[in-house]
Amino acid sequence: MATIPREVVDEALAAGKARREEILDVAYLRFRDDWHHIPRGTVIVEGRIVWGYPRIGRILRLETGLAEQFGGPFQAEEKIDGYNVRIVHAAGRALAFTRGGFLCPFTTDRLSDLMDTSFLEAEPERVVCAEVAGPENPYLVGHPPFIAEDVRLFVFDLMPLDRPGFEPPDRRAALVEAARLPAAPVLGRYTPADLEALRALLRRLDAEGREGVVLKALAPPWRRAKYVTAASAVADVRVSVSALRQLPPEYFTNRILRLVLFLDEEGMAADPELERRLGAAFIEGLREAIAQFRAQRHVTHRFRCRFRRRAHAEALLALQQRLAGHGQVRLLRLEREGEWEVLEFEKVDPEMTGLLGHVLRGGVVYD
Amino acid sequence: MATIPREVVDEALAAGKARREEILDVAYLRFRDDWHHIPRGTVIVEGRIVWGYPRIGRILRLETGLAEQFGGPFQAEEKIDGYNVRIVHAAGRALAFTRGGFLCPFTTDRLSDLMDTSFLEAEPERVVCAEVAGPENPYLVGHPPFIAEDVRLFVFDLMPLDRPGFEPPDRRAALVEAARLPAAPVLGRYTPADLEALRALLRRLDAEGREGVVLKALAPPWRRAKYVTAASAVADVRVSVSALRQLPPEYFTNRILRLVLFLDEEGMAADPELERRLGAAFIEGLREAIAQFRAQRHVTHRFRCRFRRRAHAEALLALQQRLAGHGQVRLLRLEREGEWEVLEFEKVDPEMTGLLGHVLRGGVVYD
Repeated sequence: MATIPREVVDEALAAGKARREEILDVAYLRFRDDWHHIPRGTVIVEGRIVWGYPRIGRILRLETGLAEQFGGPFQAEEKIDGYNVRIVHAAGRALAFTRGGFLCPFTTDRLSDLMDTSFLEAEPERVVCAEVAGPENPYLVGHPPFIAEDVRLFVFDLMPLDRPGFEPPDRRAALVEAARLPAAPVLGRYTPADLEALRALLRRLDAEGREGVVLKALAPPWRRAKYVTAASAVADVRVSVSALRQLPPEYFTNRILRLVLFLDEEGMAADPELERRLGAAFIEGLREAIAQFRAQRHVTHRFRCRFRRRAHAEALLALQQRLAGHGQVRLLRLEREGEWEVLEFEKVDPEMTGLLGHVLRGGVVYD
Repeated sequence: MATIPREVVDEALAAGKARREEILDVAYLRFRDDWHHIPRGTVIVEGRIVWGYPRIGRILRLETGLAEQFGGPFQAEEKIDGYNVRIVHAAGRALAFTRGGFLCPFTTDRLSDLMDTSFLEAEPERVVCAEVAGPENPYLVGHPPFIAEDVRLFVFDLMPLDRPGFEPPDRRAALVEAARLPAAPVLGRYTPADLEALRALLRRLDAEGREGVVLKALAPPWRRAKYVTAASAVADVRVSVSALRQLPPEYFTNRILRLVLFLDEEGMAADPELERRLGAAFIEGLREAIAQFRAQRHVTHRFRCRFRRRAHAEALLALQQRLAGHGQVRLLRLEREGEWEVLEFEKVDPEMTGLLGHVLRGGVVYD
């Protein structure tokens, strides 16, 4: 597993499952889909493999899920509502790759603000796995309530280069602490018997509007599972409903199921205020999309982020334009503001724009 | 179009698009899908064709939709929240076929209670199109608020045998009235300029929890369109959310879009009580499914209806068992109560049962 045979790479390229990329003058190879044992998002750069970050299963019931998934002790780490990056030292600098394996011009530009990158110079065989979150990010409309501006980075795993797998939580914490890297908060250690304590933790996170937890076993085989709050379900609906035509159709029903199972888990009675917030999340989000369509004939999602270098902002915009397809990403502003190059852009939502255009003109639908 | 050529029928049978049926000792042929120009639900019985009931497009905006869809006057008929039947005289009696072309043992049994079937003896070339609605029906969980028990029937169209097409509204009304058939209420006549009057009508229907209207032009080419209230969207969510895994995934987002466009059409401001009702519709419906799973290890939908003849109740149960698949429909009770044979049965929802079983046992999901 220390390397991927040349012929596997060639076959993946031929099948369109892998693709050669060049972003910020770094040439690399990206796996666009799972291919044999290689996960989507895996990157090969300068002959080294940055393994794709594996999916973590979700439990919807603590009462049974803890015992089912964890034989013994585990820790609860805060799940941060952001985007996942893997950071490596390559091509003479620290580079950040997204979950899908794109070299991210924004995160790469801002890495020196977000963490001490000399860690990777000292430990060049490592991959730092982190969540980047905050209102000024180029990918997500939502953000955690406790980040008021810009973005922050939270390290939650260390992987080796060339191989899948993680440092165990204690070893990782020691390394992250010694290097003074910003870490995803560890909220406590539990066993499956500590059900009530974990429920109390989740009630607190829910009341604070936080997303939830990733639970990580403290012994082999190092199992993991995530669990989220009712508040995160409502927040997801609120920020996503105007993009409903771009999302997998189960997006909303999955979140409502999580919400109701959370209430059930916590023994929470009917709560008119929560009901109102869920209903309002749907209604307000769509009302905004309609108002926007009226004002500008398009439904768009707007982003703003700050860069150190103008060329990185331009590369991020070019990447967004490529990902969204022809003409769907529009530059609104790229200007120097003090120490920052401030980029603002909007992405057109072609599905919602088309649908609202059709029905507001009086067209019929068959559904 | 007066007949369907023999070879078209044979091809449809060979392709699996049509199927021979025998229900209540009536042998007939049913089109399971659209086939060339023949719509799904079309029935051939005793050599006569009962054309499938065509889909009616939905407008989501009165302001533009009226002018777009109707050049001149149209009438608004109440849209009843029930199931669609086509009733014909064949095999020596009045028979009711569902939208999908099944001979309905329940509706057929109850026809003489629901309408004067001698109309079809006098006019054997006609097809009566009607909605059957009420709490005691074998197909739908929801029902109109103004029907407190059993079911009622509302005639909304007359078709000819053998051909598609409808009697124009005035001619149909005269025939229905002369025969004293129960009709879907006609709520008024309008032109596209009568926007405010139609909006006022819809506000009233919404406040009364009614479903909406079907608009029918009063001149050729006799165009039609439907338009529904915000209340109908909330009611649909409430009764359907526990079956969310059986529904097309766009079911819920379509209804939320209708609701928000209704509020927008009517210039209705943010309404905390409506928001609460929408949120509660999602939450309460799923809570009930969870409670039911806990109590009986299955999520089921329960039905009760009354028959005149026991054999018809048994045929309805057999049809439901066939449609739902092996073992998913369970007889709870079939007993004489005065003049009625009362049937109670439940349908298992295998998708929701499977999902809740998995997650409540502590299983993980990847979504």
